[in-house]
Amino acid sequence: MRTIEWDEGTVTIVDQTKLPDETFYLSMTKCDEVASAIQEMKVRGAPLIGVAAAYGLALTAYHSKAKTRAALMRQMETSAKTLKGTRPTAVNLFWAIDRVLSKARGTIGSAKTVARVVVDEARGMADEDVEINRKIGANGSKLICDGDVLLTHCNAGSLATVDYGTALGVIRTAWEAGRKIRVIATETRPRLQGARLTAYELKRDGIPVTLITDNMVGYAMSQRLINKVVVGADRIVRDAVVNKIGTYTIAVLAHEHGIPFYVAAPTSTFDLAQASQDVVIEERSRDEVSYIGSERVTPAEVDVLNPAFDITPMKYVSAIICETGVLSPAEFLQAASA
Amino acid sequence: MRTIEWDEGTVTIVDQTKLPDETFYLSMTKCDEVASAIQEMKVRGAPLIGVAAAYGLALTAYHSKAKTRAALMRQMETSAKTLKGTRPTAVNLFWAIDRVLSKARGTIGSAKTVARVVVDEARGMADEDVEINRKIGANGSKLICDGDVLLTHCNAGSLATVDYGTALGVIRTAWEAGRKIRVIATETRPRLQGARLTAYELKRDGIPVTLITDNMVGYAMSQRLINKVVVGADRIVRDAVVNKIGTYTIAVLAHEHGIPFYVAAPTSTFDLAQASQDVVIEERSRDEVSYIGSERVTPAEVDVLNPAFDITPMKYVSAIICETGVLSPAEFLQAASA
Repeated sequence: MRTIEWDEGTVTIVDQTKLPDETFYLSMTKCDEVASAIQEMKVRGAPLIGVAAAYGLALTAYHSKAKTRAALMRQMETSAKTLKGTRPTAVNLFWAIDRVLSKARGTIGSAKTVARVVVDEARGMADEDVEINRKIGANGSKLICDGDVLLTHCNAGSLATVDYGTALGVIRTAWEAGRKIRVIATETRPRLQGARLTAYELKRDGIPVTLITDNMVGYAMSQRLINKVVVGADRIVRDAVVNKIGTYTIAVLAHEHGIPFYVAAPTSTFDLAQASQDVVIEERSRDEVSYIGSERVTPAEVDVLNPAFDITPMKYVSAIICETGVLSPAEFLQAASA
Repeated sequence: MRTIEWDEGTVTIVDQTKLPDETFYLSMTKCDEVASAIQEMKVRGAPLIGVAAAYGLALTAYHSKAKTRAALMRQMETSAKTLKGTRPTAVNLFWAIDRVLSKARGTIGSAKTVARVVVDEARGMADEDVEINRKIGANGSKLICDGDVLLTHCNAGSLATVDYGTALGVIRTAWEAGRKIRVIATETRPRLQGARLTAYELKRDGIPVTLITDNMVGYAMSQRLINKVVVGADRIVRDAVVNKIGTYTIAVLAHEHGIPFYVAAPTSTFDLAQASQDVVIEERSRDEVSYIGSERVTPAEVDVLNPAFDITPMKYVSAIICETGVLSPAEFLQAASA
């Protein structure tokens, strides 16, 4: 199945906090449940939380007992506010919510009509996400050669999207095209998305993957074990790529070793109106660092920093792979200033 | 108490795999027990494993029933071989064993006399380690200013030495001299020495410490949260510093951000006859990455790399702080070629 599914007023996801050991399907019928799932990272990954938010609004619309279009719009606005408060950094969340709201606002007709349009829009966005990822894969796979060893960080795979993935979409397309490649995945502390999700996805597809801790990247590059980096993005502003914490560290190391650093992300991740100083970096709970599973790994009450994302200036980015093509930072900046 | 103690044929250590939650004292009377404790990282840290190995030989000598000097020497050689097989990278292990063996070989007299000399030598080395760390602290603390925020990696503290520490010795001396400093400690995957040991040591001493995951270093530097780095070393060869995996990544980031990168280590860590290509990097069990405590955090059977150390070329090192002073890489190279 897809990472997120809609069926007659029920949204079902795989709870990503329980992977890889347990495949637990979580079915939700209320927007608030979707908001909690996003906040708790049961669904995560910028493209996926965009679609999940759209489905959250669809749940509100589908189950609404509103008699009037205006009453439905008020309910949708409330849901939108809740959803927007879940996570501040990935722009797809805001993009998706605004797209659905704007579609609803532009629809003439009864509450029922608007609700139907909202559900259709959300479902369309889910289908679109898969198509976009396929295009990202096709565009990016041209950069991948036989024998490449690709480093990826966090999970920008089918589990971060509706299906197929962005960075892992590129890797998947290259693999399906017969290129002999291998992947090195960073475990990605604190939430271990690389260890839990990327390793799981790639193993399942038979793509050779080796796991390393985040602090091994420099050593692996110095030993020439890595020759390209492909990561996803949560937001791409005019001057930088915002992505999972640790991305910037990898980008600096790639730069120092002359290794290409590619970012694969849909254009819905682009936020050309903003620059890096405008971006709010989500600070998450200290317990994500202090505990691993049920186990506390630090002294009690130790002070912890836990920024969920970091900011990679464009000078470290070799190219941005999106559904419309492969953009050099210069081409991206041109698009940004257009 | 010190991290390692000798009392009439018994060596007692704090089992560092159980910290910070449990302070478990492990008493040993056989050299093989010491060798296992080193291998399983119940004792770790280059200076400490040097002294532990010396005490391992002292246990062999102290409890020996050898009638002749030659028979005792054969037992000692066997113990030395076992100890040398525990961990290949930190040079202090080999340095300490060779120093004790050489002392024994140079001693004229009965088995009993040699045994006494061996025990005295090991005890002397333990005392010396503390003195050396105090000197490293005094030399290094001159580099530390009021308001500094110091990044350290892994644990180069009292728990990595007999007492006081090398990198943390520098920090401790600066703190005791009244300098207003703060420490950012990396958790140091896979064994979490930073989260478990450094955070514990510094909290115990009241030195302000904030914990981050290893992949947050780049972000923290880019946000100007760190203005100096101080780490220990397991071996310093002609052209590079060998230290806990992740050190090289930090050094490259420090270089990129113009942040001084200091290495604090005793001269017993110097291995001037060798260059980086001569160093064997210990590859440890995949389970150290796959499991955290009793919890498996990866899919079963995933391929893992687990190098325990990495190699930082001298170009990234601002200075080496040792018991004789603060050496620039140029001064170190001069010493190396002398």
